[in-house]
Amino acid sequence: MSERKEFRDLADPERAREVVASLDLSAGAERVALEDARGRVLAERVDATLDVPGFDRAAMDGYAVRATDTYGADADPVTLPVVGSVHAGETPGVTLDDGQAAEISTGAVMPAGADAVVIVERTEELDGAADGNGAGGSDGDSGDDAEGGRRVRIETAVTPGENVMLAGADIAAGERALGPGTELTPREIGLLSALGVDEVPVRAEPRVAIVSTGDELVRPGDDLDHRAGQIHDVNSYAVATAVEEAGGEPVVYPHVGDDTAAMEETLLDAAADCDLVLTSGSTSASAVDMVYRVVEDRGELLLHGVAIKPGKPMLVGRIGGESGDSESDETVRDGAAYVGLPGYPVSALTIFRTFVAPAIRSSAGLPEPRTASIDGEMAVAERTEEGRRRLLAVGLVEDEAGETLVYPVDKGSGATTTLTAADGVVDVPADTNRLSAGERVTVDLFSPDVRPPTLLGVGEDDPALSRVLDRLDRPRYLARGSRGGLRELRDGLPDVAVVAGPFDADEEGVADAADLGGWSREWGLVVPAGNPEGVTGPADLVDRDLSFVNRGTESGLRTSLSNALADLADDRGVDRQAVTESISGFDRAARAFESPARSVAAGDADAGLGLRATAAKLGLGFVPVGSQSVRVLANPDRLEKASVRELDGLLEDVSRVLDGLDGFERR
Amino acid sequence: MSERKEFRDLADPERAREVVASLDLSAGAERVALEDARGRVLAERVDATLDVPGFDRAAMDGYAVRATDTYGADADPVTLPVVGSVHAGETPGVTLDDGQAAEISTGAVMPAGADAVVIVERTEELDGAADGNGAGGSDGDSGDDAEGGRRVRIETAVTPGENVMLAGADIAAGERALGPGTELTPREIGLLSALGVDEVPVRAEPRVAIVSTGDELVRPGDDLDHRAGQIHDVNSYAVATAVEEAGGEPVVYPHVGDDTAAMEETLLDAAADCDLVLTSGSTSASAVDMVYRVVEDRGELLLHGVAIKPGKPMLVGRIGGESGDSESDETVRDGAAYVGLPGYPVSALTIFRTFVAPAIRSSAGLPEPRTASIDGEMAVAERTEEGRRRLLAVGLVEDEAGETLVYPVDKGSGATTTLTAADGVVDVPADTNRLSAGERVTVDLFSPDVRPPTLLGVGEDDPALSRVLDRLDRPRYLARGSRGGLRELRDGLPDVAVVAGPFDADEEGVADAADLGGWSREWGLVVPAGNPEGVTGPADLVDRDLSFVNRGTESGLRTSLSNALADLADDRGVDRQAVTESISGFDRAARAFESPARSVAAGDADAGLGLRATAAKLGLGFVPVGSQSVRVLANPDRLEKASVRELDGLLEDVSRVLDGLDGFERR
Repeated sequence: MSERKEFRDLADPERAREVVASLDLSAGAERVALEDARGRVLAERVDATLDVPGFDRAAMDGYAVRATDTYGADADPVTLPVVGSVHAGETPGVTLDDGQAAEISTGAVMPAGADAVVIVERTEELDGAADGNGAGGSDGDSGDDAEGGRRVRIETAVTPGENVMLAGADIAAGERALGPGTELTPREIGLLSALGVDEVPVRAEPRVAIVSTGDELVRPGDDLDHRAGQIHDVNSYAVATAVEEAGGEPVVYPHVGDDTAAMEETLLDAAADCDLVLTSGSTSASAVDMVYRVVEDRGELLLHGVAIKPGKPMLVGRIGGESGDSESDETVRDGAAYVGLPGYPVSALTIFRTFVAPAIRSSAGLPEPRTASIDGEMAVAERTEEGRRRLLAVGLVEDEAGETLVYPVDKGSGATTTLTAADGVVDVPADTNRLSAGERVTVDLFSPDVRPPTLLGVGEDDPALSRVLDRLDRPRYLARGSRGGLRELRDGLPDVAVVAGPFDADEEGVADAADLGGWSREWGLVVPAGNPEGVTGPADLVDRDLSFVNRGTESGLRTSLSNALADLADDRGVDRQAVTESISGFDRAARAFESPARSVAAGDADAGLGLRATAAKLGLGFVPVGSQSVRVLANPDRLEKASVRELDGLLEDVSRVLDGLDGFERR
Repeated sequence: MSERKEFRDLADPERAREVVASLDLSAGAERVALEDARGRVLAERVDATLDVPGFDRAAMDGYAVRATDTYGADADPVTLPVVGSVHAGETPGVTLDDGQAAEISTGAVMPAGADAVVIVERTEELDGAADGNGAGGSDGDSGDDAEGGRRVRIETAVTPGENVMLAGADIAAGERALGPGTELTPREIGLLSALGVDEVPVRAEPRVAIVSTGDELVRPGDDLDHRAGQIHDVNSYAVATAVEEAGGEPVVYPHVGDDTAAMEETLLDAAADCDLVLTSGSTSASAVDMVYRVVEDRGELLLHGVAIKPGKPMLVGRIGGESGDSESDETVRDGAAYVGLPGYPVSALTIFRTFVAPAIRSSAGLPEPRTASIDGEMAVAERTEEGRRRLLAVGLVEDEAGETLVYPVDKGSGATTTLTAADGVVDVPADTNRLSAGERVTVDLFSPDVRPPTLLGVGEDDPALSRVLDRLDRPRYLARGSRGGLRELRDGLPDVAVVAGPFDADEEGVADAADLGGWSREWGLVVPAGNPEGVTGPADLVDRDLSFVNRGTESGLRTSLSNALADLADDRGVDRQAVTESISGFDRAARAFESPARSVAAGDADAGLGLRATAAKLGLGFVPVGSQSVRVLANPDRLEKASVRELDGLLEDVSRVLDGLDGFERR
């Protein structure tokens, strides 16, 4: 029965799925309070142990009667003495004889002797004192029985059982109410409540240990030492959340460093306490090898590596158990199931979703979610490595006609922003080495609830733009600089591009783009508070020994700086390159609009390219150089798209979002 | 701004939706720990406050170098001295000069002086001692710099930045990371972790008070007094679960009886503490009127009744606030939103789902779930009341070809089993008075995860059958007795019918049904333990003054008893009706197979029709009368359906499920 080891041979993905499925994750059953049972799955059948309702119950407000007393009442109304009233939640104080009626409310117990209810709308209660003697009832009993002389005129005939729910008619004691494996939604909770059940036997959630490995990990909330290469632990929290989503109970262990003994101890502790142990976080071969060795020594490795990208370093096995070397099934089963996830977050979540989540759901008894996929066409070409199946992370955007365009979003190894810039994956077969632009592909969405972003923008990053985006519903913005925005807009991918500084629309191939509006922003040199070096402008960067931090070549801010330096060179009659080469740090290109200013704040530079607003925000000094326009250019094919129109409307009244941003003005 | 009252006029459903949407449920924002943030929605934008990565980071295992030192290495490998090693999570202890390399692990800080990484697969580390002198490096530096004489042969050229992730390349401080309104899935949790965020600002879940009304309500787990008409509180728990599902925080209040002062106090308490107050549970007009009056007096009633079935008694308004009579917006806004749900559970959940859940989701910032609907054809005709739009609860079954058949499942007012026997609703317009069999309809599923049951069975209830059903995945079984099963099978609805006792297949119109197998069960009279009355058989019921409980006319058990009594009458040469009429309780028809026995156990009868197995289970006495077969008949058009084949397989080996059931035998 035990799976055979497969060393170093990359397993076929289907095979990997089978091996993971063969691991025994079942966590047994437990009893939970009805209030906590939502989303859980019944471990065993629940039979009714009582009748619902437990008594013959009036289904309408009206009068309880003997049906025989109402025959003919449609043609010739019948007047009956009212011998009492019965309300819901009380024991009837009356018994009906022939020719009597009792007022009754919905939900009340039918009084003995009654077998039907006449709805109140088909009756008229007559005033006892006034009508006690003269009421023309064809079947009126003596007024003495009536409560205070009350009488009711019945205007319709009823049959026995009419408007009555008999005891057990809903469900009766002994009946099968809900089967094992039933997922408990509000509807099942309602039925269980009716049956008086306040505690239900459910499948236990498999406990899933999450052990991140790597000396460099620091938990979110704690400070990083960048010089020591520390990074925040991403996988522990992302995978824990994914475990919860799949119906497991995550148990996050403190991360372990590259120490075999500590790793072994943590993994064995986790195996003793949990049904499944997941490791993740290690991206280095040495750490992976260390985990590999522990699983080999203290468990059983069933699979090493799967022929899919990402996912090559996936490990599958069992860990714990008295002797992992033994081939005895029983011994091995004492341990926990084990899966080693790749270290990069996008890879870890992809492998988790593809191979591990189905096993957890199966253990928890949860059905596979309705798979959601969207067909679309590749907006750009993508090369893939032949010979290995690939799950290509992609983003989506809809064109004006509602057609879905698909674009790859991987920013490269380990980027965490890929997590949120992607909507799903395209499963590219091993024998495909290229997806062409315009090719039809199917995108498996990360969840059935994923919707394409309403708006896709690409371009310069800017604080006013962030505020504009906040007012839109689910936009996606890729900060790839003004040059990146223009390039993508020319290729027709985004709905809008955001461009800062001067550009030539014809030269950029975006002459037909629509200018939706924008603003201007004051830029210059961000310096330490109080400007201790007395920097006066770009010329000082050239002439003095000041360290500088620039923006990247894609940035519109850098374009404006380069233009200013070109003017300076021209004024001085010198070569432009000579000017830039004499600036210490001209090629030190920071990623985002605040980055150079933050380097200044950290004492790492004397000046940085940036905005007056950023200097004000960070409490730094500012040497103004100029003002540049920020323009929102719309894809000419998307002008009728709802989100583009909404953005156009917001930009009409852009002053609102500029409030409090120093140096920003309506254009 | 304030909505106008609309008394007693049934509102159009669209109008009702607008009025509910106009209620202000927004609960503001709160901060939650990252671990608890799954499924929550960001209340405000989150910008990166640090660069990710925070340092120039090796993206691969290999050797950190200056790219210029590797030029030409593809053709002519270069050997460099290895001046140190840098691992992830440590501060580099080396600085690279021209012509040097340092071993580096993925995730490690690039040492100063290095600008690229050569991946380990394209290198070969030479043994320092052996090769220190003789290695043919074209650019080898002095062996003195190398760590213990280590040298590495570089077999490929790299460009500056190759296999390095620059600081901030993933996301940089100041960049917009996630916008307000973003739902937090594992992917967003991953990005937030990377940013070091351990607490996130999220939309608060609206607090939703649930106040059930009615003197008759008892919480599940507590005993009922049937004589006093007590029932378990279904709506509090079902609606609370539905509130959770919609993203609200349910607050279940103790139910209130028909006491205006107590109701007013509870509603005002709830309004002070919650964003929305729901009442439900009252089915009687008087209780509804009472709630109505409290809302009128201490709040504002905006809508009373909606033109939809179920839902007529829906109330919408606001409650609390200093003076509900005031027309001042401000005063009214101090209170909570209020919605009165109908009393019957199916109605309450339908109205909740249709009108209230969207408002809660909107307040919590959650998107509307992908609506799921299935097209199918009506398996039977259904009359509807013209003039009022109706949400008809229906069940689904797939035929062999995968076509979906739709059938109404409402068992009548207040039935809780309708909750779980239905899969969704058909929205029937007000001007339609009939759905014909075969008519195409669209079913709005209760949730996108609803799947039609794998198997639909109708017929006799039976303890062995319950066990068989437990072994199938998501079957649905409607216990409508053997006669009901035969009728439905003849009409072609179910996959299988289960029939106990004798029947004539030709007469029933099921001659072409396939007999999948079955078992036999011993039946007779269940009597108190020890059989104190010394009952010997059916003749005693006729001849002696014994009170009896029968099963309903649909039941196969009753058929067998009636046959036995007919034989008795024939033996005695008397009229059959005379025999049954002399049995006290022959018409006392109980709903389920255990019900008569339970009446005996409760001391309510001297004998009940039932099974030996039931008597054994309940510790009662048993007087055997006969044995009857229980047969599972398959719809001839469904024989190839997977679940029918699976059931057929189970019945092959039915002995397993009969184990421990007294009087059951394989047929």
